[in-house]
Amino acid sequence: MAKFNFQVSKTSGKAPGTVVYLGEKEVRPPKITVLNYNPDKCEFEQITSVEELARFRDDPAVTWINIDGISHVETIEKIGEIFGLHPLLLEDIVDTNQRPKYEEFDNGIFLVLKMLTFNEKTQLVEAEHLSLVLGKNFVISFQEHEGDVFENIRYRIKETKWRIRKLGADYLAYALTDAVVDNYFAILERLGENIETVEEQIVKAADDNIQRRIYLLKRELIMLRKSVWPLREVINSMQKNESKMITKTTNLFLRDLYDHTIQTIDTIETMRDILTGMLDIYMSVVSNRMNSIMKVLTIIATIFIPLTFIAGVYGMNFDDMPELHQKWGYPAVLALMAAVTIGMLLFFRRKKWI
Amino acid sequence: MAKFNFQVSKTSGKAPGTVVYLGEKEVRPPKITVLNYNPDKCEFEQITSVEELARFRDDPAVTWINIDGISHVETIEKIGEIFGLHPLLLEDIVDTNQRPKYEEFDNGIFLVLKMLTFNEKTQLVEAEHLSLVLGKNFVISFQEHEGDVFENIRYRIKETKWRIRKLGADYLAYALTDAVVDNYFAILERLGENIETVEEQIVKAADDNIQRRIYLLKRELIMLRKSVWPLREVINSMQKNESKMITKTTNLFLRDLYDHTIQTIDTIETMRDILTGMLDIYMSVVSNRMNSIMKVLTIIATIFIPLTFIAGVYGMNFDDMPELHQKWGYPAVLALMAAVTIGMLLFFRRKKWI
Amino acid sequence: MAKFNFQVSKTSGKAPGTVVYLGEKEVRPPKITVLNYNPDKCEFEQITSVEELARFRDDPAVTWINIDGISHVETIEKIGEIFGLHPLLLEDIVDTNQRPKYEEFDNGIFLVLKMLTFNEKTQLVEAEHLSLVLGKNFVISFQEHEGDVFENIRYRIKETKWRIRKLGADYLAYALTDAVVDNYFAILERLGENIETVEEQIVKAADDNIQRRIYLLKRELIMLRKSVWPLREVINSMQKNESKMITKTTNLFLRDLYDHTIQTIDTIETMRDILTGMLDIYMSVVSNRMNSIMKVLTIIATIFIPLTFIAGVYGMNFDDMPELHQKWGYPAVLALMAAVTIGMLLFFRRKKWI
Amino acid sequence: MAKFNFQVSKTSGKAPGTVVYLGEKEVRPPKITVLNYNPDKCEFEQITSVEELARFRDDPAVTWINIDGISHVETIEKIGEIFGLHPLLLEDIVDTNQRPKYEEFDNGIFLVLKMLTFNEKTQLVEAEHLSLVLGKNFVISFQEHEGDVFENIRYRIKETKWRIRKLGADYLAYALTDAVVDNYFAILERLGENIETVEEQIVKAADDNIQRRIYLLKRELIMLRKSVWPLREVINSMQKNESKMITKTTNLFLRDLYDHTIQTIDTIETMRDILTGMLDIYMSVVSNRMNSIMKVLTIIATIFIPLTFIAGVYGMNFDDMPELHQKWGYPAVLALMAAVTIGMLLFFRRKKWI
Amino acid sequence: MAKFNFQVSKTSGKAPGTVVYLGEKEVRPPKITVLNYNPDKCEFEQITSVEELARFRDDPAVTWINIDGISHVETIEKIGEIFGLHPLLLEDIVDTNQRPKYEEFDNGIFLVLKMLTFNEKTQLVEAEHLSLVLGKNFVISFQEHEGDVFENIRYRIKETKWRIRKLGADYLAYALTDAVVDNYFAILERLGENIETVEEQIVKAADDNIQRRIYLLKRELIMLRKSVWPLREVINSMQKNESKMITKTTNLFLRDLYDHTIQTIDTIETMRDILTGMLDIYMSVVSNRMNSIMKVLTIIATIFIPLTFIAGVYGMNFDDMPELHQKWGYPAVLALMAAVTIGMLLFFRRKKWI
Repeated sequence: MAKFNFQVSKTSGKAPGTVVYLGEKEVRPPKITVLNYNPDKCEFEQITSVEELARFRDDPAVTWINIDGISHVETIEKIGEIFGLHPLLLEDIVDTNQRPKYEEFDNGIFLVLKMLTFNEKTQLVEAEHLSLVLGKNFVISFQEHEGDVFENIRYRIKETKWRIRKLGADYLAYALTDAVVDNYFAILERLGENIETVEEQIVKAADDNIQRRIYLLKRELIMLRKSVWPLREVINSMQKNESKMITKTTNLFLRDLYDHTIQTIDTIETMRDILTGMLDIYMSVVSNRMNSIMKVLTIIATIFIPLTFIAGVYGMNFDDMPELHQKWGYPAVLALMAAVTIGMLLFFRRKKWI
Repeated sequence: MAKFNFQVSKTSGKAPGTVVYLGEKEVRPPKITVLNYNPDKCEFEQITSVEELARFRDDPAVTWINIDGISHVETIEKIGEIFGLHPLLLEDIVDTNQRPKYEEFDNGIFLVLKMLTFNEKTQLVEAEHLSLVLGKNFVISFQEHEGDVFENIRYRIKETKWRIRKLGADYLAYALTDAVVDNYFAILERLGENIETVEEQIVKAADDNIQRRIYLLKRELIMLRKSVWPLREVINSMQKNESKMITKTTNLFLRDLYDHTIQTIDTIETMRDILTGMLDIYMSVVSNRMNSIMKVLTIIATIFIPLTFIAGVYGMNFDDMPELHQKWGYPAVLALMAAVTIGMLLFFRRKKWI
Repeated sequence: MAKFNFQVSKTSGKAPGTVVYLGEKEVRPPKITVLNYNPDKCEFEQITSVEELARFRDDPAVTWINIDGISHVETIEKIGEIFGLHPLLLEDIVDTNQRPKYEEFDNGIFLVLKMLTFNEKTQLVEAEHLSLVLGKNFVISFQEHEGDVFENIRYRIKETKWRIRKLGADYLAYALTDAVVDNYFAILERLGENIETVEEQIVKAADDNIQRRIYLLKRELIMLRKSVWPLREVINSMQKNESKMITKTTNLFLRDLYDHTIQTIDTIETMRDILTGMLDIYMSVVSNRMNSIMKVLTIIATIFIPLTFIAGVYGMNFDDMPELHQKWGYPAVLALMAAVTIGMLLFFRRKKWI
Repeated sequence: MAKFNFQVSKTSGKAPGTVVYLGEKEVRPPKITVLNYNPDKCEFEQITSVEELARFRDDPAVTWINIDGISHVETIEKIGEIFGLHPLLLEDIVDTNQRPKYEEFDNGIFLVLKMLTFNEKTQLVEAEHLSLVLGKNFVISFQEHEGDVFENIRYRIKETKWRIRKLGADYLAYALTDAVVDNYFAILERLGENIETVEEQIVKAADDNIQRRIYLLKRELIMLRKSVWPLREVINSMQKNESKMITKTTNLFLRDLYDHTIQTIDTIETMRDILTGMLDIYMSVVSNRMNSIMKVLTIIATIFIPLTFIAGVYGMNFDDMPELHQKWGYPAVLALMAAVTIGMLLFFRRKKWI
Repeated sequence: MAKFNFQVSKTSGKAPGTVVYLGEKEVRPPKITVLNYNPDKCEFEQITSVEELARFRDDPAVTWINIDGISHVETIEKIGEIFGLHPLLLEDIVDTNQRPKYEEFDNGIFLVLKMLTFNEKTQLVEAEHLSLVLGKNFVISFQEHEGDVFENIRYRIKETKWRIRKLGADYLAYALTDAVVDNYFAILERLGENIETVEEQIVKAADDNIQRRIYLLKRELIMLRKSVWPLREVINSMQKNESKMITKTTNLFLRDLYDHTIQTIDTIETMRDILTGMLDIYMSVVSNRMNSIMKVLTIIATIFIPLTFIAGVYGMNFDDMPELHQKWGYPAVLALMAAVTIGMLLFFRRKKWI
């Protein structure tokens, strides 16, 4: 995710449905892996030529085709051809700025999701564009890079004992979406830890840095919300889909997933509220510190300025200053200075400044 | 409740429907108590082996099975088996991060609630995860720890004179929910007292601490709201349930309960508004204090700085300063100083600083 | 109304439908008055024994039973018995924390309202809990104390010329509600006057007190809103009631009343907006004052500090300071000081500080 | 419009439907003018006796009766009698605090609008209460004072070439409403100019006055919004009216009018947003100015305070201060002072204060 | 776009449906160009006499008539006559203050859009009023000036290979709207870059200018939002139109366009949130800087003021000051001064000011 993700869609000025990749510069053919399974078998293959995918289109076993890399437009278009995907749909697959969406088409369901990872080095949340195409007996997943949150799903498919092996492509699509949402909780936990750290630091040492960190956390949450909010709609539509792609069993799980999405949104909003509260307390800590600096200055200045004046008076060189020539003159002035000091201190005490 | 309750669901990466307990570390078998009653009898039992529960499933008398402790996953799963509960439902029972929800299943209703207690020592609101399963003639309640807000209900069941003894399991479920919501009022009263205390302190002594207390109270309210808001939906759905589990009599009481929930939400919002107002007044008190400190500094400095200057002039060692050698020199300078002082004081008075 | 009205419902831990009075401590039997009228007659009675009320239940003439005092629970329960009121309903009658609500029951309509009065001494709005029960031909009103806003209604009933004498119990219920809402305007007018006073004072003398007064006014409005908002729902439900208790004629008046409620809410929101604006201007006035104080300090200090330094230099006791022994030394230094002063003043003028 | 428009309805305590005028004190009979026209004729009359109006009730030509002055309650009531207006409706006509509303009655439509004018002298928006009654073939308009925004309509009616002459009373009602809304744009333009003026001044000279002007503009917008918001509802209801008073032709124009109302609301909200932004920038300009004042003070003080100290040291009268008696003493001290000054200036430059 | 776009509709006081141009002063006849195409041919013409347009009205090939310039009212009215456009519609075409809207009329669809361009010189977003009329086989586009975002569409029409050449007028209308929305992304990207620049500058050098730039960016976004928000409604209505003007194919593309509009709104809201966060951080940076200035002042002043006082004491001219005549007097005072300085520095270190 670039700093702000406000890039212009480079498709502007192009005909609608033109497939243009907006992400990283380097273009290479994607890595394509296929998992073909039913309750009895489970085959894993790495595909080198796109054309090979055709045979999975009507294979009765469930097929999960995973595409790592969406920069090679020709490959994407060829896949689109094989599986009969509309150009507008292909446009969304490669448009990394596309927000999460749900769409039904003639023989399937199309989902856009955002796979988030927390970059420990930059302390920023990074989004990866993920598209899922659910057909009768296959799921195609398009990712920007290798590396994802699906390892556990692959593991479960390969073992025979898990539910996923026995259920259809719709359950696989659910499982992938569920893994994405589950991962949001991990992100939120990391942000939550950062929020706690900041909270502890505010009271100890409210330096300029803290405000900056609050601001960055807030911005992360704004970005996160942009990814998660539309998801609610997506999963809601998926549940109520009319294309009969989703079986009743899977639907039950979708209800649960919807619940998790709401919980994520809830947590994001709560975190925002708490960060706003922190900003208030930070501002107040700073202004209180200022206050205490001012107090010290005022106390020192208001005590010594009058004393210095008194000393100044008796430093004058007039010929005729009778006090200067009295024995008691010097002690009397010292006494006067002491009296002024004590008076000031009492005044400050009454004002509760010391 | 941990400090922020932003823990990641440890189920992430697990298959959906995997029952994983997220709460306290130590795992022990739960304490199970059973209350079996109808208008004529009332039996109390403590159960040691989960299998014994099976006989209550079809017992025509109302049965309240209370489980204290949800960390022992095997027990929870066995109970689920006996009463035919879906794995996703069991997942919610042990997932202490699950927000309040209402769900109907084939032969019953499932509720998730948050039981709140005000910890007098930490002055924080603590949440305990509570799940209710309402079957045809039984209610199963799952709590995190022993100790709850249901003592009065147990007492009413044991006595013959109360309404609860004569009504069915649905009324029992209502009564438990009602006890939870009733307790929210107690929590709000405690917070209300704290708010009043803070309000009184603001005017007396606006120190840094008060801002912190306002912040903490606000955070408590944010957390509270997270528990109470979804409850509105829960009770509303319960009222409009289609499974015919809820009798008309109980429904009347649910309407009342719904009302109480709205009242709780109302009070939380009002408290938030008032706390925001307090923050404003606190900030203003602080800035006014700063103001008055500055005023004192300015008055002292602006009076004495010119006087010190005059004294400085006549402390200079020029050979030829005629004033120094006049008889009237010293008194004249003193008079000048007095005049400057009076002029300054009049200026300050006109400015309304003194 | 207590300071914050956040008391816990003392019914918590009691069985639902338990009638527990939450208001003032002292318990005395209520004062019961009855107005029984039809177009031809109008009888006023003060009742001492609750049992006497039974005869009005089926009296074809319209009966208005007014109960002043809801602390004597036995009396309330007896009245409930006579007129067939549900225990939950009685609970609401004595629960002074109950928010405004509308409920239909088998043979009538039940309303909870808040009667507000402006306490001139404390300058606070005080709420009195008011419940209305509308039956086929009677209205029962439950008030916390004697003294209400219904004097004009009593007067109109006693005279023959007014519309109220000719219409049924539903119109009476409307007239009572209308009197309550009408009185809100009086409250708002008083608050409006206070807001105007504060506005005038802000510019004249922005002292610490004003912020406090704005805060208190805001809190009053928050409390008021809590009373008025649910009223919209109440009157709306009343208009759309299905129990056919409300005649078409009265319905026309209810539409008007609904309008007044909206107007009240509107005014409250407008007042809140204006108060928020005032707070901003107050904060700015304070910070501007601070600014002008700082300016005076800076001008005085920056002029005299360099001058004092110059005087200090020629107050040094070095043996060999040639300037000291020149005839022109003293005038030259005075001229230098004048030059510095003029330079400073020009600098300030350029900065637009003076 | 009084300063805040929060007067209590003086009807409180009166029977509902009592016609009480709330506006200006002086009561005089209204000025009544009648325009009676159809495509062929157009007659203008000034009516002195209310009874004369009766003949227009069933006149097939369109009649526009304009009443300037609503303080003379008897006249209003007599008009109500002649045209069969409900007392509640008459109450709204004279209640200057009534917000805009739409009501259908048996044989007509009733509208309350606010006619706004911008008082150039006080720079305040003033509202005039305007009620329209649309009957089968007449429109009655009730205004508070003479002088309105309808001159162009009168002109168009008198000429034959305009559409209005050929259409019915419903189009006249639309045209009057349209003229009122059109005038809102003029008001908004005036406010927009004021906002621009304030914006320009903020950067030039951010004095206390600007905050006040922003506050007043904001208050004007709050008041305006109170007049315009309900209008949306009014015109929407008018469009969807069921009384068949509004012809299809007029309905087309109402759709356009609705659009204009939305545009007015949009502009008000935008202006509010911009004013809020201005307040922020103003506060920042003020605090930046404070900053620069503090900087000057600090620079002057931190340079001269150490210098003055050095001078003070060599002004001490100790017998045994060897430096004082050296030839190089005085130049050395002057050099030291120069060094301190240069050091300070370098420090400030590094801090980027100068 | 004028600075605030709050001009009054100069139609006020005019009859509704009067076509009055509100934009630039100079009136010249518009430049009219026609593109007439079907899959087989594509003819481009520049029209000089409006009457020539009549022949395209019923031409079976798709015709795109583009009008550059809407100030020449007579021409607009003549076009309206030829294509049967309602006067209210013409009013909207020339009313440059009209917000985006969708309207269906008897034989077509009418759209108002805002074409935005980013003026690199003023760094302001400028809006151009654009109206589209979609008839059975033609689209008329009315622009304020020459120059638009449609060059790519013209290119695609002229080539045979593109989809647009084969589809009807409804697809052309979609393509034009799509080009307008696509361009919004370019605008947002420019604003996004500016936001990033400002963000970088805040930390480096938080001068007064930055606040101003944030304010201007915010205002731009407010204006942008005013253009984009109603668009959602427009495209939604277009999708659900009942006039059967929009074919199923085009509808698919409209769904995509709707999506883009939502994305634009999303981005605007996100940018606003981020700008608000920036303002907070800017205010805090400024106040921290103030803080550090105060600290320097306080440290210098509190160290030297007491020292100067001590020097002053021993500059007094009393006859009888024994210390002055001691050998150790001067070193002792110097030592005292050093002690005071060290004490102060330790105090500051403990306070963590240095």
